[in-house]
Amino acid sequence: MALNIPKYTPPDFNQEIFINAPNATLVEVVKDGVSPANYHALSVFPEYFKINNKWVLATESRMDTVCVAYDEMGKESVNIVEFRNLKVGDKVVIGRTEDGSQGIYMYTQGFVNKSHDSDTFAFRSGRSRETAFSIDYDQLYEILKHEKAKNGYVTWVLGTAISLDEDTRNAMERLIREGYVNAILCGTSLAAFDLECGTFGTTWGQKVFRREQNTYENYYETINMVREAGSIESFVKSGQVKDGIMKACVECNVPFVLASTVRDRFTLPGTYDNVYEAQNAMRKHARKTSTIIMVSTILFTIATGNMTPSYNEFDGVIRPVYMYTVDIQEFAVNKLADRGTLTATSVVTNTQDFVKNIGRALA
Amino acid sequence: MALNIPKYTPPDFNQEIFINAPNATLVEVVKDGVSPANYHALSVFPEYFKINNKWVLATESRMDTVCVAYDEMGKESVNIVEFRNLKVGDKVVIGRTEDGSQGIYMYTQGFVNKSHDSDTFAFRSGRSRETAFSIDYDQLYEILKHEKAKNGYVTWVLGTAISLDEDTRNAMERLIREGYVNAILCGTSLAAFDLECGTFGTTWGQKVFRREQNTYENYYETINMVREAGSIESFVKSGQVKDGIMKACVECNVPFVLASTVRDRFTLPGTYDNVYEAQNAMRKHARKTSTIIMVSTILFTIATGNMTPSYNEFDGVIRPVYMYTVDIQEFAVNKLADRGTLTATSVVTNTQDFVKNIGRALA
Amino acid sequence: MALNIPKYTPPDFNQEIFINAPNATLVEVVKDGVSPANYHALSVFPEYFKINNKWVLATESRMDTVCVAYDEMGKESVNIVEFRNLKVGDKVVIGRTEDGSQGIYMYTQGFVNKSHDSDTFAFRSGRSRETAFSIDYDQLYEILKHEKAKNGYVTWVLGTAISLDEDTRNAMERLIREGYVNAILCGTSLAAFDLECGTFGTTWGQKVFRREQNTYENYYETINMVREAGSIESFVKSGQVKDGIMKACVECNVPFVLASTVRDRFTLPGTYDNVYEAQNAMRKHARKTSTIIMVSTILFTIATGNMTPSYNEFDGVIRPVYMYTVDIQEFAVNKLADRGTLTATSVVTNTQDFVKNIGRALA
Amino acid sequence: MALNIPKYTPPDFNQEIFINAPNATLVEVVKDGVSPANYHALSVFPEYFKINNKWVLATESRMDTVCVAYDEMGKESVNIVEFRNLKVGDKVVIGRTEDGSQGIYMYTQGFVNKSHDSDTFAFRSGRSRETAFSIDYDQLYEILKHEKAKNGYVTWVLGTAISLDEDTRNAMERLIREGYVNAILCGTSLAAFDLECGTFGTTWGQKVFRREQNTYENYYETINMVREAGSIESFVKSGQVKDGIMKACVECNVPFVLASTVRDRFTLPGTYDNVYEAQNAMRKHARKTSTIIMVSTILFTIATGNMTPSYNEFDGVIRPVYMYTVDIQEFAVNKLADRGTLTATSVVTNTQDFVKNIGRALA
Repeated sequence: MALNIPKYTPPDFNQEIFINAPNATLVEVVKDGVSPANYHALSVFPEYFKINNKWVLATESRMDTVCVAYDEMGKESVNIVEFRNLKVGDKVVIGRTEDGSQGIYMYTQGFVNKSHDSDTFAFRSGRSRETAFSIDYDQLYEILKHEKAKNGYVTWVLGTAISLDEDTRNAMERLIREGYVNAILCGTSLAAFDLECGTFGTTWGQKVFRREQNTYENYYETINMVREAGSIESFVKSGQVKDGIMKACVECNVPFVLASTVRDRFTLPGTYDNVYEAQNAMRKHARKTSTIIMVSTILFTIATGNMTPSYNEFDGVIRPVYMYTVDIQEFAVNKLADRGTLTATSVVTNTQDFVKNIGRALA
Repeated sequence: MALNIPKYTPPDFNQEIFINAPNATLVEVVKDGVSPANYHALSVFPEYFKINNKWVLATESRMDTVCVAYDEMGKESVNIVEFRNLKVGDKVVIGRTEDGSQGIYMYTQGFVNKSHDSDTFAFRSGRSRETAFSIDYDQLYEILKHEKAKNGYVTWVLGTAISLDEDTRNAMERLIREGYVNAILCGTSLAAFDLECGTFGTTWGQKVFRREQNTYENYYETINMVREAGSIESFVKSGQVKDGIMKACVECNVPFVLASTVRDRFTLPGTYDNVYEAQNAMRKHARKTSTIIMVSTILFTIATGNMTPSYNEFDGVIRPVYMYTVDIQEFAVNKLADRGTLTATSVVTNTQDFVKNIGRALA
Repeated sequence: MALNIPKYTPPDFNQEIFINAPNATLVEVVKDGVSPANYHALSVFPEYFKINNKWVLATESRMDTVCVAYDEMGKESVNIVEFRNLKVGDKVVIGRTEDGSQGIYMYTQGFVNKSHDSDTFAFRSGRSRETAFSIDYDQLYEILKHEKAKNGYVTWVLGTAISLDEDTRNAMERLIREGYVNAILCGTSLAAFDLECGTFGTTWGQKVFRREQNTYENYYETINMVREAGSIESFVKSGQVKDGIMKACVECNVPFVLASTVRDRFTLPGTYDNVYEAQNAMRKHARKTSTIIMVSTILFTIATGNMTPSYNEFDGVIRPVYMYTVDIQEFAVNKLADRGTLTATSVVTNTQDFVKNIGRALA
Repeated sequence: MALNIPKYTPPDFNQEIFINAPNATLVEVVKDGVSPANYHALSVFPEYFKINNKWVLATESRMDTVCVAYDEMGKESVNIVEFRNLKVGDKVVIGRTEDGSQGIYMYTQGFVNKSHDSDTFAFRSGRSRETAFSIDYDQLYEILKHEKAKNGYVTWVLGTAISLDEDTRNAMERLIREGYVNAILCGTSLAAFDLECGTFGTTWGQKVFRREQNTYENYYETINMVREAGSIESFVKSGQVKDGIMKACVECNVPFVLASTVRDRFTLPGTYDNVYEAQNAMRKHARKTSTIIMVSTILFTIATGNMTPSYNEFDGVIRPVYMYTVDIQEFAVNKLADRGTLTATSVVTNTQDFVKNIGRALA
């Protein structure tokens, strides 16, 4: 199965409607973290803003945030900013139309292949447990091989179950070591369970994989030990961890972001306990991601899906960002699809099997 | 991972309570399909009935049915019969105690290993999507190898999705051809989808696996064609089917039972449209099953789970029947577990992945 | 909230394309229960067939079945028939286009209100547990009042849980007695649980509502008793049942159809054990239904949804059939919606609460 | 239905095993936020610690945290502290047995009524969509009336859907105004949706309740407006909010805690963006709660369930804390039950209907 990345065709800005359109209206922020009224909120589609009579594409975009424009003559640019991060003096694009008539143009046809059939970039809707998924797996394998070969940036958003199951954890470790993982975003518990297993050979709420003893205390003991060591990196380097996901990340220099939730009573060093700081750290990876695989809870999947652009610019080329959402519930995978994400492929299964499938196919 | 089939220790009938117990009370049926009041309903556990002062074990048992006793001196025996199948003159065991005091003894300790740890035959409860399943897969692979080697009887209860996904259908075909399948119980749609795919290369409600055309009409065309051919066997032998599950069954002499539901507007020849006849045909396989794998809808899984004994006698040895229930919903897998099935192992995942996993491991 | 039933605007058959269209091709059935190839399968939309140069509307339609035409001059008519019910000599409409060019016209715009907003007959898509349902309940209450006042035909498809919960069972009984129920389609277990509760005061798998004793044997005892009585009607009339759904049906002359599944070991007299006979009995009600409320398992909901026309003719007027699907899983309610049902309103909740809500609002 | 609060019977500390038991071993913390190894983790049951030869009960307990003991002679006491909140010098109880032999006693029989049937404080297990819930609702109504009459402390943990549905939001507002709510814990989005509806009359991602316009921008406009006003209280007092949950809270002095998650791009003033601070604020309410109703996402339900003691001391009397968990998924409600919570009652339904039921019954 050959990989056929959709080509991007920019709008023709020589059309009358674009030439005659006014510049986008800009209004300055007067209080930090408060937007002017009537702001324009970004969508998942490519959007252009007319600034000093130039149409500027928003890259590294994010849905439901605002556009801050920089209109120094000759260096027109835009930055897509969360409301909370607005600063006094930022010039925010104002307006509620998206057809160019207010200097704002949302472009839905960029990846539509006119000569060919329209299926090249179609979202196969109505995913359920009964959808046949073989073709999606095949395509994903091709994408991951492509990303590895062409310096893509593959971000994985992982849920706790990935480090609880033996074969799944092994598959994930191999994928990291073989170069299919450029960043991991997850909760503190995935890392702690993984380190517990690598240190004590036990897993939470169960006996060891071969079920000889019940050892849930080891989870907190592990966090205590890492806290004493000062960081996950130094704990791994101390030699106490014999295998696993975190060890592979440290040894292969794969960055990870650990984000907290209100469920977490006790977190590993380096975990972001402030959700805004966590998002800022996560979005650093989302901004440069070319493929994202979300195998986590609804919370993390939606959080990351929302901040990942559906298209982006790589080496000067506009390309869709491939997005895979995996969950055992239709509700969860459809929640992201409902928001209009262009390139999301949903798979309804247990995330353990999803990761094992990829591990078997590639690493 | 070595397979360790639990050994059965019969009760010690030399104990006072058994010696002093009366014979079971028997009351004759006076109207077909109507039981005497105060009947004894079977459980999932081994049960013994005292007849002419002999304790007789019920084999090929079924929960929530009644025990018909044959008390010709020297040839005491029992048969476990559904209420609907009771005939005038059948002698039904009466009573509501199970401790022997009415000649009825339910034995819950037969597979408990007293010298060892109790885990050898434990039901790991509270299964959910977050349970680590590697160990269950490993055990299942060992069981299937054992059954193949030792003339076991492996029954598969399959849901429609199994024939809709390309890799899953291929895995199932290989498992049949490699000898891991002794009987298949399913709905008419699994067979029809499989035959459609083997004949037209298309699948229901979708385009073909490679998605070139939308072809749902082929489903009914296929059924029409098989009806014209007279049977699935003759249709397969006509050479029009190029691959698939049904073809493998016909070529490998693996029996299949097709049962209808009220959803089926149009069924393949050989499908049981009467649910009682369907159950009778299914129970013929359930009675001799040593391992059953239920990868179907809740309806078929519960139907089959209910009629499959949790233990049985093979070559004179009492052994548990291994039972695997797979569903994407905890609700479904727990429904069977709640009914007290002894040996049920639940796996929460998409059934496509479950079958593919087994296919990769064994065939 | 006023009820505004969408008006139907028939196609304008004076247009060239309709005048110039050929009559529909008819091919005779040569074997019972086998259709000619290349048949036309019905959709959920209104469809017209050109016979002897007249365009005839299919009423009492059913998706995925075929059209049998009667072309006696001056008495042109059509009947929508399941494949299995085709008889030798039936003239089946052939063709795979729906734009009139083969004498087959599928009409998607009949209920679209051109002058007004398009919302009057819109399907609110993407239903999930998070959808706000107040407005749907309000509309349903208006519909049910209208149906009661105007001799509508309200069919309820009920799941077992309706007779297991005390308040829900009471609500259903009141709705029957108050005239909001014209027919009930269900499994044998709903009726048996209801009769058990009305006779013994107990419910399956639980203690009584106030939980004093565990009494699951009473379920089968009840079926035995009704079998002895000969029918549900005669059992109710014997005075042994003190309250409940079945008693209300018998006393108010509300017909019910009991259909079996392969799970049913033992059924009440009058239950259809053959699924084709069951469907024929169910479709008698579906053909005349003006509103259908499906509060059952996926199996019965899909079965009934498939056989219920999305529009029909009442007193000479073409009207949509209102269809409510209730389930706790998005998967279930979306399965019917995916099939293109025009007027389906999905509610994602526990069916107990759904019935209690209606009971409180109306009866 | 009369409310029968289980009585607590303390252990008999005159028994030999208690008299002979040693004092609990205490080890000092040497680094903030790091526990000594081999700590004792609290359970959901009442636990006693032997300090200076006195057995001290832990109140305001929390599962999976540690016990810090204060052993000044004559003023022995304990405090249950999260690992992260440990300070240098804190004396932590060490040990892995719970039978008294290390000065640690976990008491599972405190609420068991020996003379009566054991049902008075039983957890009805195996809850599913098919469980009959009428009796649970009836009991809950009695509990809420009791709490209102006797100065109980009822904490509600609310999910976003509660403010999206019209009837549900109205029911919640009435319950607050009628005195059935002592504290609300929720995410920022519930409050923002509620305020949007109270201000603009619109709701997120939908048209207004009567569906005339699509207005999702109003959500962020609302947050901007509250930020300008400085706080929810001042925004409500400005008179711009015409109804709703937040308005009722402000006017009735019902405290609320808003906690962030990584999904929140933009939060209302007063929202805790640091998850530890959020938990500390939430636990202030959990410590004094007598009944808690969790109608939220899994995340908030587990977070709160974990920090709420299953028993507590009110006016000198040890009493169970009533805990209701509501979710549309069995997985969610069972997750808390699996952790051993004593008094949790699970209801499987849409939370909208749950709140509407209570609203109709009480307010």
